[in-house]
Amino acid sequence: VDRNRLEGFSDGVIAVAITLLALNLIVPGPGHGPLLSQLADRWPSFVAYLLSFFTIGIIWVNHHALMKTIVAVTRTLLFLNLVLLLFVVLIPFATAVMAEYMGTSGNDAHISMALYAAVLLGMGLAFGALFELALRRGRGRIGSPAQLRRARYQFLVGSVAYAIAFIIAFISPPASLAILGAVAVYYIFERTAALGESTAEGADQ
Amino acid sequence: VDRNRLEGFSDGVIAVAITLLALNLIVPGPGHGPLLSQLADRWPSFVAYLLSFFTIGIIWVNHHALMKTIVAVTRTLLFLNLVLLLFVVLIPFATAVMAEYMGTSGNDAHISMALYAAVLLGMGLAFGALFELALRRGRGRIGSPAQLRRARYQFLVGSVAYAIAFIIAFISPPASLAILGAVAVYYIFERTAALGESTAEGADQ
Amino acid sequence: VDRNRLEGFSDGVIAVAITLLALNLIVPGPGHGPLLSQLADRWPSFVAYLLSFFTIGIIWVNHHALMKTIVAVTRTLLFLNLVLLLFVVLIPFATAVMAEYMGTSGNDAHISMALYAAVLLGMGLAFGALFELALRRGRGRIGSPAQLRRARYQFLVGSVAYAIAFIIAFISPPASLAILGAVAVYYIFERTAALGESTAEGADQ
Amino acid sequence: VDRNRLEGFSDGVIAVAITLLALNLIVPGPGHGPLLSQLADRWPSFVAYLLSFFTIGIIWVNHHALMKTIVAVTRTLLFLNLVLLLFVVLIPFATAVMAEYMGTSGNDAHISMALYAAVLLGMGLAFGALFELALRRGRGRIGSPAQLRRARYQFLVGSVAYAIAFIIAFISPPASLAILGAVAVYYIFERTAALGESTAEGADQ
Repeated sequence: VDRNRLEGFSDGVIAVAITLLALNLIVPGPGHGPLLSQLADRWPSFVAYLLSFFTIGIIWVNHHALMKTIVAVTRTLLFLNLVLLLFVVLIPFATAVMAEYMGTSGNDAHISMALYAAVLLGMGLAFGALFELALRRGRGRIGSPAQLRRARYQFLVGSVAYAIAFIIAFISPPASLAILGAVAVYYIFERTAALGESTAEGADQ
Repeated sequence: VDRNRLEGFSDGVIAVAITLLALNLIVPGPGHGPLLSQLADRWPSFVAYLLSFFTIGIIWVNHHALMKTIVAVTRTLLFLNLVLLLFVVLIPFATAVMAEYMGTSGNDAHISMALYAAVLLGMGLAFGALFELALRRGRGRIGSPAQLRRARYQFLVGSVAYAIAFIIAFISPPASLAILGAVAVYYIFERTAALGESTAEGADQ
Repeated sequence: VDRNRLEGFSDGVIAVAITLLALNLIVPGPGHGPLLSQLADRWPSFVAYLLSFFTIGIIWVNHHALMKTIVAVTRTLLFLNLVLLLFVVLIPFATAVMAEYMGTSGNDAHISMALYAAVLLGMGLAFGALFELALRRGRGRIGSPAQLRRARYQFLVGSVAYAIAFIIAFISPPASLAILGAVAVYYIFERTAALGESTAEGADQ
Repeated sequence: VDRNRLEGFSDGVIAVAITLLALNLIVPGPGHGPLLSQLADRWPSFVAYLLSFFTIGIIWVNHHALMKTIVAVTRTLLFLNLVLLLFVVLIPFATAVMAEYMGTSGNDAHISMALYAAVLLGMGLAFGALFELALRRGRGRIGSPAQLRRARYQFLVGSVAYAIAFIIAFISPPASLAILGAVAVYYIFERTAALGESTAEGADQ
């Protein structure tokens, strides 16, 4: 019951955050040139929308997998989950800033991409902490030591990649963006083995 | 349990998206002429609101029918569902653009209507893919071959009509709008036979 | 199960709509005079927020009572429920318009109040239709003929009062507002007898 | 079942309100100086976001603990819960006003902080009333008299601190802010003993 309400609240916040991403999509409207070029000028918004939509979508999928391993909803868990949601809710803001400066040159393009990567890194670290907390109690639900290693590895990959993207942002924003896109693609195709294999994942094979 | 959380998340996103439609309804306010003419000038917003509200409402009803046939929540299903939601979340944006250019003449009226139809087409195709995926596993839940044919036909009708509306948009935006309205009316009155007959639908007869 | 998802979706839409009401609360900010007088100037927004918040809150409570009498989720029910939600989602818009023109004089004050009452009337009529639909099947769950009469009477009261408020709006907006406020107070204190008595209500006595 | 829907609706409103906090985070965008100084200039928005995010998060945690003690969902409970949500929904607005005036000097800094504290005080009082209502019926679920005293004490602490912060706001806004921050930290670390001990809390020890 407790876990259900935690999932319900988290799902609510994630659902609102993913939908608010679309508020960043605006065109100036009639009297500001041909619509097609207005849309074309806003291409960074659409790229950023795509990336953030799938990133938040993956957060939801992984959150869903992680929650299945939770045995007891402790206050520490609730608090760490709030920290995770704090970063999720920042994603639409960071997406908007990043989209506005993407395609510009100069220092601000670096800063905006670093801000975006930093928000994702904060999210990834909160996720990792939640995972470790779940491990302390729910080890039995996660599976063999090999599966556990693989699951931890997969959580780590994200945070390490976000950290690298943060640093690369100061050198080349497009390269940073490419890394963040690659993480999204990685999580979509790679299965979070130990967590999902015995349940949802197995059904695909 | 898994299916419940998938439904809950999808319902959350759809509920937020359908409510955000109303953010497109604004009047300039005092000092911009009589309120009645401000409202009258914004008639395209109200028409677009009506159409998109029922379109998203129907998506919810059909999603709800489709989910009942799902046997196992696989990662492919989660991903296809995200793609569906990606297009649902774009509907308020596409509605706003379409409303702004509806009633104008020239190329932008065509483009804006085509954009709207394209978003609905993307949504329809994602829905079709989800349906086919559900079929691969949940065939038993859907019913006789005749019911299956009818259900597939009904899903196809939407996508084909959206594709036609997309093309017609470049010739006549009002005709395109009429097609999209007809699809909404079709889905409201026609029952998605094979999916619903044995459950919700039966109760009406 | 079906009813649960219908309730979940409706709750989601109502929850988003009630929260979006607060987006109408804005002050111009630093450089636009003392904050206290900015807040005081916006008093209609706060009055309108209060009224609409409790109105939507009551819709939720009554929706919740009505759903308990539903035996089968039919397509007609889903459609009528969508119509109800269509009007609920319009409430933040109508509230914003009404608040902007409240306190002004002239024709637009009448129009804006009439618009607000019209949206509530539409909502009340959709509610009445849902109630009658529930009756056709769920009569057994509602109780004795006397309770039924009382429940129908209480649903009618709202719609009739909204219709009167709509007409009065063209004569005196403040009187119209007072009627709408009285309806909210009525529903808060009066119990929707037949629907609630045997369940939640009984527990208060 | 009733309690579930009450929780679901409350969670929905709280989830939307906590996510809307992020709408207050905006930077002016390209052409308004270096991005880093735009972000630095908006530091009050980020501080206010952090404080309000955890405050709403704690409201959710405590609401969740309180609901577990509810035996019967009465109309009085529904109404008090609406009053609580009314204040929760005002938090994003009060946060925005407070952030805009934080860091300014003069009377408006006092007023905006007092407004923020007043909204939290209203929320705290509604919470206290809900708690006392739950006590009248659910005493058995709450535990020993000592636990009950402790739970009541912990609910009171919040409201008293909010009242003090409201008064202090007229003397020193930063001191008021510090008190509000301390309340958030207190609730995060202190466990709401009587309510949670036997369930979620126990698992941490």
